[in-house]
Amino acid sequence: MKKLINRVEDAVKEELAGMQALHPELLRVDFENQIVVRADAPVRGKVGVISGGGSGHEPMHGGFVGRGMLDAACPGEVFTSPVPDQMLAATRAVNGGSGVLHIVKNYTGDVLNFEMAAELAGAEGIEVESIVTNDDVAVQDSLYTAGRRGVGVTVLLEKIVGGFAETGAPLADVAALARKVNDQGRSMGMALTSCVVPAAGKPTFELGEDEMEIGIGIHGEPGRRRVKLAPASEITEMLAMPIIEDLGLKSGERVLAFVNGMGGTPLIELYIVANELAKILRGRDITIARSLIGNYITSLEMAGCSITLLRLNDELIRYWDAPVHTPALRWGV
Amino acid sequence: MKKLINRVEDAVKEELAGMQALHPELLRVDFENQIVVRADAPVRGKVGVISGGGSGHEPMHGGFVGRGMLDAACPGEVFTSPVPDQMLAATRAVNGGSGVLHIVKNYTGDVLNFEMAAELAGAEGIEVESIVTNDDVAVQDSLYTAGRRGVGVTVLLEKIVGGFAETGAPLADVAALARKVNDQGRSMGMALTSCVVPAAGKPTFELGEDEMEIGIGIHGEPGRRRVKLAPASEITEMLAMPIIEDLGLKSGERVLAFVNGMGGTPLIELYIVANELAKILRGRDITIARSLIGNYITSLEMAGCSITLLRLNDELIRYWDAPVHTPALRWGV
Repeated sequence: MKKLINRVEDAVKEELAGMQALHPELLRVDFENQIVVRADAPVRGKVGVISGGGSGHEPMHGGFVGRGMLDAACPGEVFTSPVPDQMLAATRAVNGGSGVLHIVKNYTGDVLNFEMAAELAGAEGIEVESIVTNDDVAVQDSLYTAGRRGVGVTVLLEKIVGGFAETGAPLADVAALARKVNDQGRSMGMALTSCVVPAAGKPTFELGEDEMEIGIGIHGEPGRRRVKLAPASEITEMLAMPIIEDLGLKSGERVLAFVNGMGGTPLIELYIVANELAKILRGRDITIARSLIGNYITSLEMAGCSITLLRLNDELIRYWDAPVHTPALRWGV
Repeated sequence: MKKLINRVEDAVKEELAGMQALHPELLRVDFENQIVVRADAPVRGKVGVISGGGSGHEPMHGGFVGRGMLDAACPGEVFTSPVPDQMLAATRAVNGGSGVLHIVKNYTGDVLNFEMAAELAGAEGIEVESIVTNDDVAVQDSLYTAGRRGVGVTVLLEKIVGGFAETGAPLADVAALARKVNDQGRSMGMALTSCVVPAAGKPTFELGEDEMEIGIGIHGEPGRRRVKLAPASEITEMLAMPIIEDLGLKSGERVLAFVNGMGGTPLIELYIVANELAKILRGRDITIARSLIGNYITSLEMAGCSITLLRLNDELIRYWDAPVHTPALRWGV
């Protein structure tokens, strides 16, 4: 295993210490509870927005903590759900009196633990709403999920809903917008290689030199099918078409196109995929009104990519464009 | 070779088409000359700032085209210098009457071709100044360089000098600031794995499962030494100490700390390196006043990282903080 780490068991804690050292103006790390909290939390009168999940998907979620996006993130160990105590601590830390939204990717462990944390917070008088993202069209049920998995839309949702929460909107409205964003987005991913979980020390799965996995999950869990390597044009079509069909995208509509790297794929390849995606959308008279490209929801050093399309309207564009200042996404400030 | 590409010979052109499709508000691609040009170039009364070099280092340089950074970039084929015609076309495209600065990384091909382009532009009456970056402390001469190689400082220089050029400063002052930035920054990199150049189809070099290369170049050219894999703490020390010594950094000084991924290394590892770097600097009473972390000057899918330290003063901080809007770096707008 070739990794820039010290002891495997210290990796996440040292990562968080690195975040605090580089971004003291944006966030603070509560090491006891292993949570990342916006530097000025809790913000009075603003709904607190938190998320969390296993580590190994960086910059998600800790890299999205800051003004206009998340108020806190709860990182578990690599590919391991955080525990309810972390989520409860984060909920307390960001509650400015207007309640807290939990953004939960649909994985069984995450969902159960966030549910428990929401109950505990409720018992303390903190109002909590939850949104479970489930945008992955690849599989219905999977190794870690009942129903569709939550993947790329989570990033877009955290930005848009975080921007809306900044306006002082009430919790019910913030949660309603979160549900709307989740409804309007779909994703699918693929892998050229496996990743190596540090605690395991060997690849999660094996792929032949001429094979790829279509519909892969962000923990290396199996996808739709293992097939022969193909040109980028065919791979992009395999990912984009199920998304376009499931969303029912029609001529004249606008989308946010998100081409995401899994961690080990260089940007030159992501732009080649983006070019193929743009051709497919252009051919159907669908406009890329906004875009995001790069490594945002990753699977350690896995090579591969995912595509997310989010149907846009003026409201979603307004909060996508709103100022954001986090380690990984920043504009307007 | 497992890559998200179509035909090898189309990779760079398709990448550029992808950039144009996703960022039409920031840039346009001149496919005939294979250059990326800021959407509103030439900007009257502003010094044009251009750079260029082989592809495979993305987002450098095309991803830095936009307001507050580069006016144009000239991408060669993968790890291959662009030709003088590209540089001349870019120089013409961005000349708003105030002259053009060429930012050149110190590689023999790049230097010669930019020199020729500057002469040709001069013959057309366009005033050109050049800065050759040479911040890599790893080696004096290398496979492709006489003198030190130009690496990470180039990214910081393009941002700072681009921000200054935006104020309408004259060419001589813009070039002087560029020289100052280059003088105040040093870098060193390392690799855990090789990359695969598409046209070659196989790894540029071989590293054993327990080996790493310290002082690697961004084209996989050899570094200082091949050694046994070590913990992140030791690796960070091997990179940071030669930089600190060469720069002569002293107690009480401020730096911009840039922890750069080579393309295939996940962010969790870069933050672990950042934590080690912060400890080393803290121990010497050197303040991280600004930081940058992520994949900015890469070597395709190579796993590894580089560290760049730039000694800061108020002037450099002002133009680092100035608004920038490019595909890869954006803030304040």
